[in-house]
Amino acid sequence: MSSIFTKIINGEIPSFKVAESDLFYAFLDIRPLAKGHTLVVPKKEIDYFFDIGDEELKNMIIFSKRLAICIQEVIPCNRVGMAVLGLEVPHAHVHLVPLNSIDDLNFSNPKLDLNQEEMIEIAQSIYKSFIKQTH
Amino acid sequence: MSSIFTKIINGEIPSFKVAESDLFYAFLDIRPLAKGHTLVVPKKEIDYFFDIGDEELKNMIIFSKRLAICIQEVIPCNRVGMAVLGLEVPHAHVHLVPLNSIDDLNFSNPKLDLNQEEMIEIAQSIYKSFIKQTH
Repeated sequence: MSSIFTKIINGEIPSFKVAESDLFYAFLDIRPLAKGHTLVVPKKEIDYFFDIGDEELKNMIIFSKRLAICIQEVIPCNRVGMAVLGLEVPHAHVHLVPLNSIDDLNFSNPKLDLNQEEMIEIAQSIYKSFIKQTH
Repeated sequence: MSSIFTKIINGEIPSFKVAESDLFYAFLDIRPLAKGHTLVVPKKEIDYFFDIGDEELKNMIIFSKRLAICIQEVIPCNRVGMAVLGLEVPHAHVHLVPLNSIDDLNFSNPKLDLNQEEMIEIAQSIYKSFIKQTH
């Protein structure tokens, strides 16, 4: 059975898309730790991040870097942090989280409850920045 | 002035080394979230992870992957997670943390107080696994 992320990538489940390439898809986490909290997933379904093949993993870190720069450009924050847990959905993914303090990258923190309009606005602003940077 | 990590790499400050290459140095975090909590740093002093040049960043993620596999081999855990905060020491670094639950990658958690012997034993077992894997 397809993972929830594969269903998102295929458009079977809606998402707030922020970036896409031939290999990767990125979208807003719907239970964000901060405004702009983004997930980057490989289109190829692989369970564990460190099981991703070397070439794909190299591409994924560069895709994540490009995107982190865009997130930092549009979301007020000190730094964009990165986390890989690998214990939630069995489809490898990187969290990119705008941070102001060390405690902001704490997955036990209460999640933000943003409305649909806010999520669309955030996604569009990151998407525009990504398109501008990569074209 | 050199960062604390540069001093560690140069041996001016002692560390529990677990792996080294021409570009990277890895050692146990002395305030670990879990047994085997490791820091990977580029030898070249760069403040922010996402400012690392593309080629070096690709190498760093592959070095981190090799090391994560070694950590998982010698430390009982569910997965090895990864985090980049970028708000602590102004010298880019990746945290590799053995995880059993999502809450284990929480930098607000109390740090483990391991004695010197335990740290040496952990560092040696990861180092041996790394040497075996890469030679």
